[in-house]
Amino acid sequence: MIRIGIVGFGVVGQGFVELLISKKNEVSKMIGDFKVEFIADSKSSISGDFELDEALKLKKMTGRLKDDKKPQELVEDAEYDVLIECSVTKLEGGDALRYIKTALKKGSHVVTSNKGPLVAEFEELMKIAEKNDVKLMYEATVGAAIPVIRVAKGYLKTFTIKSVYGILNGTCNYILSRMEEEGLDFNQVLSEAVELGIAETDASYDIEGIDAAIKLVILANTVGIRAKFDEVYRKGISYITPEAFRIANEKDYTIRLVAEASKDKLSVAPRLVKKSHPLSIKGTMNVVVFKTEEAGELYLAGRGAGKYETASAMISDMVHIYAPSS
Amino acid sequence: MIRIGIVGFGVVGQGFVELLISKKNEVSKMIGDFKVEFIADSKSSISGDFELDEALKLKKMTGRLKDDKKPQELVEDAEYDVLIECSVTKLEGGDALRYIKTALKKGSHVVTSNKGPLVAEFEELMKIAEKNDVKLMYEATVGAAIPVIRVAKGYLKTFTIKSVYGILNGTCNYILSRMEEEGLDFNQVLSEAVELGIAETDASYDIEGIDAAIKLVILANTVGIRAKFDEVYRKGISYITPEAFRIANEKDYTIRLVAEASKDKLSVAPRLVKKSHPLSIKGTMNVVVFKTEEAGELYLAGRGAGKYETASAMISDMVHIYAPSS
Repeated sequence: MIRIGIVGFGVVGQGFVELLISKKNEVSKMIGDFKVEFIADSKSSISGDFELDEALKLKKMTGRLKDDKKPQELVEDAEYDVLIECSVTKLEGGDALRYIKTALKKGSHVVTSNKGPLVAEFEELMKIAEKNDVKLMYEATVGAAIPVIRVAKGYLKTFTIKSVYGILNGTCNYILSRMEEEGLDFNQVLSEAVELGIAETDASYDIEGIDAAIKLVILANTVGIRAKFDEVYRKGISYITPEAFRIANEKDYTIRLVAEASKDKLSVAPRLVKKSHPLSIKGTMNVVVFKTEEAGELYLAGRGAGKYETASAMISDMVHIYAPSS
Repeated sequence: MIRIGIVGFGVVGQGFVELLISKKNEVSKMIGDFKVEFIADSKSSISGDFELDEALKLKKMTGRLKDDKKPQELVEDAEYDVLIECSVTKLEGGDALRYIKTALKKGSHVVTSNKGPLVAEFEELMKIAEKNDVKLMYEATVGAAIPVIRVAKGYLKTFTIKSVYGILNGTCNYILSRMEEEGLDFNQVLSEAVELGIAETDASYDIEGIDAAIKLVILANTVGIRAKFDEVYRKGISYITPEAFRIANEKDYTIRLVAEASKDKLSVAPRLVKKSHPLSIKGTMNVVVFKTEEAGELYLAGRGAGKYETASAMISDMVHIYAPSS
């Protein structure tokens, strides 16, 4: 019986539990029986004997779970084999960093969608996992369901990766593609994006390239390039004008926020991109390109965010821990 | 000590051996020591104590290897843990089908780049592998180094795949993109492609969609859609005119040879594709799109063929058999 603990019960956490319910039979066939021992959000929790449906209903109707026990307490004291960590990303790691370390040191696997702890202490976390002979899985942190981490760490481990680059922020890509297509002004598209829920009211995290830089740091470390957030050269998209698109368009180019990591380069900045190039992808999509010595460039693309997009990556990560083969 | 047998010593087989030499240390670190027990092409072979360099030189200088022993004999009598099968694809399976069955029944793993045996007897081969508790790996058969099989069988096993579609033949895509860009006639581009070595003198295998249909059958079976070659609706590209491209272009569309498999559809045919869609990729590239219930469409793209592109997929497959994790 695999015992699961869940910390973070917002959009992603709820998506994970919903998928766990709908995929119960398939997942059990792959990894054997499992049981969720506890679910905690930042202020409340549920543990012991409870139904997953009940927890979802409670959260949706009351905004909280039934007990006052805090996540740290459960992460420390409960018994579980794998911790599903989906609390909100904080650049310096936040409480989640402590949850993850506690779980790994107890000998539990961790599956996280939280970029903060990884960008803060990538190397240290990997060492703790290795030392305790457990896995720290984080597919959901970059490109939601696009299997960039799995491909980088698994399939490509026999390849020489010269660099990795791509479109890592869907909000910026949405804004830039609408500016390209409709000749609109940056601020106009941004305010529409906020209305549509594609951008946050404080959009600086996205439009200044912070989110893309965080993901780049995770990707870089994944392919063996030691990188820290402060080392990323970073330029946002707010100064880009409709004129810039017009000039680019004359030569069949467009403008995209491109993140790139290689041995000599760590950068997030707007770049001219040929309209026929896969990086010229439109809307909220993400693309990751691995430049390999053996096989040229390999492209992976898909939606960059979303409830089930992110949660389904975590389900796959969890199953992979127990059934890595094929 | 992992014992390797190699059948097929053309471009791909030689590429595999070259990579095995250059990656000896890394591969050993991942799977432990290994040794190539024999290499066979259709008419000659080398086995016992020999250097890989020696075999490559011999083949390059004399066009053959040193002994007269035939592949079937070695596949039957030699002792090996994994067979690397890279002889030439024949639609009905050919001799390679016998080699692969023999190896699997002996309890050896098989890594193949050969589409023939898989398209002829996919289900039966998988059953033989399962019964003998060995793996049959075939990443190199579809899209060279693009990890479509690994992603489909590994990462996506927890997803619901509604359909799979894409550009599976680089030669057709090269011809169509040149027709699109330069307004040229089909036959003119084809003869230039033959001169450049991108198309065979007898190009019917590519331009009639046979190669794409073969790969589609392999992909379909991989994602659980039972499919046989004869069931694929197939239409080639030779009748496509520059006028068709002109008309498509007016609406911002282009034409591509699209292969698609779902529960209700198995088809390889030219289709109108939006120029902003990832399927509109240019040149000899391949794209595979998995349409999932949980996360929308996931795209994988890269070079569709090539010596090291194909051989590097086989190296990754071989390592995955012994070191599936991470």
